[in-house]
Amino acid sequence: MVDTPISPLATPFPALPPIAGATPRVARARYKTWNRCDLTFVELAPGTAVAGVLTNSRCPSPEVEWCRAALTLGRARALVVNAGNSNAFTGNRGRAAVEAIAARTAGHLGCQPSDVFVASTGVIGVPLPIDKAEAGLDAAFTADITDWKSAAETIGTTDTYPKGAMTTAIVDGRTVTLVGIIKGSGMIAPDMATMLGFVFTDAAVDPALLQRALSAANAPSFSCITVDGDTSTSDTVLAFATGAAGNAMLVDDDSAGADAFRAALNDLCHQLAILVVRDGEGATKLIEVEVIAAESDRSAHRIAMSIANSPLVKTAIAGEDANWGRIVMAVGKAGEPAERDKLSIRFGNTLVARDGLAVEGYDEAPVAAHLKGQEIAVGVDLGLGDGQATVWTCDLTHGYISINADYRS
Amino acid sequence: MVDTPISPLATPFPALPPIAGATPRVARARYKTWNRCDLTFVELAPGTAVAGVLTNSRCPSPEVEWCRAALTLGRARALVVNAGNSNAFTGNRGRAAVEAIAARTAGHLGCQPSDVFVASTGVIGVPLPIDKAEAGLDAAFTADITDWKSAAETIGTTDTYPKGAMTTAIVDGRTVTLVGIIKGSGMIAPDMATMLGFVFTDAAVDPALLQRALSAANAPSFSCITVDGDTSTSDTVLAFATGAAGNAMLVDDDSAGADAFRAALNDLCHQLAILVVRDGEGATKLIEVEVIAAESDRSAHRIAMSIANSPLVKTAIAGEDANWGRIVMAVGKAGEPAERDKLSIRFGNTLVARDGLAVEGYDEAPVAAHLKGQEIAVGVDLGLGDGQATVWTCDLTHGYISINADYRS
Repeated sequence: MVDTPISPLATPFPALPPIAGATPRVARARYKTWNRCDLTFVELAPGTAVAGVLTNSRCPSPEVEWCRAALTLGRARALVVNAGNSNAFTGNRGRAAVEAIAARTAGHLGCQPSDVFVASTGVIGVPLPIDKAEAGLDAAFTADITDWKSAAETIGTTDTYPKGAMTTAIVDGRTVTLVGIIKGSGMIAPDMATMLGFVFTDAAVDPALLQRALSAANAPSFSCITVDGDTSTSDTVLAFATGAAGNAMLVDDDSAGADAFRAALNDLCHQLAILVVRDGEGATKLIEVEVIAAESDRSAHRIAMSIANSPLVKTAIAGEDANWGRIVMAVGKAGEPAERDKLSIRFGNTLVARDGLAVEGYDEAPVAAHLKGQEIAVGVDLGLGDGQATVWTCDLTHGYISINADYRS
Repeated sequence: MVDTPISPLATPFPALPPIAGATPRVARARYKTWNRCDLTFVELAPGTAVAGVLTNSRCPSPEVEWCRAALTLGRARALVVNAGNSNAFTGNRGRAAVEAIAARTAGHLGCQPSDVFVASTGVIGVPLPIDKAEAGLDAAFTADITDWKSAAETIGTTDTYPKGAMTTAIVDGRTVTLVGIIKGSGMIAPDMATMLGFVFTDAAVDPALLQRALSAANAPSFSCITVDGDTSTSDTVLAFATGAAGNAMLVDDDSAGADAFRAALNDLCHQLAILVVRDGEGATKLIEVEVIAAESDRSAHRIAMSIANSPLVKTAIAGEDANWGRIVMAVGKAGEPAERDKLSIRFGNTLVARDGLAVEGYDEAPVAAHLKGQEIAVGVDLGLGDGQATVWTCDLTHGYISINADYRS
């Protein structure tokens, strides 16, 4: 959380209930010269299942490598999140810092180091100072239990507001609750995950089912957002299921309980993903790009991302300019099957181009009104097949330049 | 050419000699409400060979489709370039405009319409008005012969300065001259070609050899520059060889003359490509990204382009910030083979990270001095193989946002 103005697209932090078996505490490790909490420690009840999706970056942080290995065991007793230092690209010293955090936490809880999940974001290339991490952990171990809002504030870096969401599902006759917190604002083009997102539920879920459900929920949510096309070295989404709700363990994919749980998880991940775009660096508009009638879903997704990552499309929308020629450009450059003379484009509900031609005399008033709003819908109909995709991004403004040309490395 | 301030990276227009057999004239077609020349007509001597590289966009302009068809014949008598209207995404009416221009020019010269090459840039989605094009052509047919500088000014749109280059080669004992003019500033990520570039030479060159030479020259020049990652619908580079120098026709690739001509063409295309980056929208720094020791040249190129297109890298350089963590990020997201712990990064000649770690206590003074300059060199050594690539881009500044969020569609 920084002192920059709150995103105009921010939404209030919702009332999030405690999750039995997942207990958050925060502390000051002082990874930077600030006086805010920057270390989050979530203790998880014995038997908690864990699943995760991690960055596909070829240069991942040691935290990502640690989580990837620990996820194979499927169980978690703690989550530790550091803000202000990503610990990425720090070689052996970075690995040592993660190991030290896991060891100290395991010693406190009496568990295995591999039961401890670690995530960090912030500056790249500076080893996380082990002394600060250990002192911060010791403070967190004895800190009062806090709420999810404080945890969401503590994991943030360039975020301008804390981001969380919740939902519920009926599983095995019992209401289970899912809570999520997430951070991220720039360097956002998650490739299988977003910056740092954490989901906690009291449902009892088998780790393998939890992993399948999370991977499936990730595809249309975190993998469908982009702020700047820049994929982080640290992208991590972890889901923890404590089992405290007391439902019969969800194991079978083909069950009513699994269906309900998956639907709730999908909903939660979608909510969290949109919150990240709403805090996109410099964002003034939330943009939904829907591509239909592509040759395949995969092709539709690539075309939608080509539009959502185009600086010319994003600046046009920042300028409230119905410049659909730039959308044609972005469709054309995607390298996916497209036929110019079958292409149609809409802003909001108004078709501005159809079958490769501007719609003659279309009513500009509703388009102008739509573009003046905060939530912009762009639709592209390729006229080819059944493939479709929806992705979300934000506009590209002077705010993005100010934030990133002045950022201290 | 627009009224925005001239790029701080602009270089003076060089003295370009006439090319025998290639005669430029300009006129006012008034495609927009301006009083500048916006139609360029270059008459070419009978027998002129032509070659071209055209956009790979799936939504190309009718001009691009016209040139693609005409190039199969290998001969040209005229080039017509329109500025202010790209005629892209205009369906049958756009095709009719191109056909009308070719027909009128062919009537004037007594040649085939397929001997006339047409290129247009500017707004997308508005059919080029045939009446204005025809009146502009008639004015051009009778206009005084002009120089290459006026032609370079006339083909420009959002360009802030006219761009041209020249070189010579000794072929068959005679000096042949190559002159090029180019335009482009935004929507620049040429995919086999850049916005609009035209090369004229008095050398006598067989069209097939000319095409091979141009395609080869394109690969390390126009295909290695990016301003904003946005590939235009209209990218076109055409080379015309009038034969007026009187050398024995170059036909055989394995000849001293062909070697000399190719070397000159490579040099010219490189000069022209750099001029476009120097006029990148909002640019204050010219950035060269060199990637070495990649698994293959192709892999090196993709990693270099991932760095050159990263908004976080480009804003960091705009801020003169040695934020090499963002370069790690861009290497990691490229999806190409990379091993974090073998990766080294330099700014200018100063190594800032080696073998996956910050270089402890590296001298920051030369890095800071280098980043304050106008020509920035970024080097990445992957430590894997023999693949290498060099690409050029510019920084991302408030100027880019101002130009593109205010652009009238």
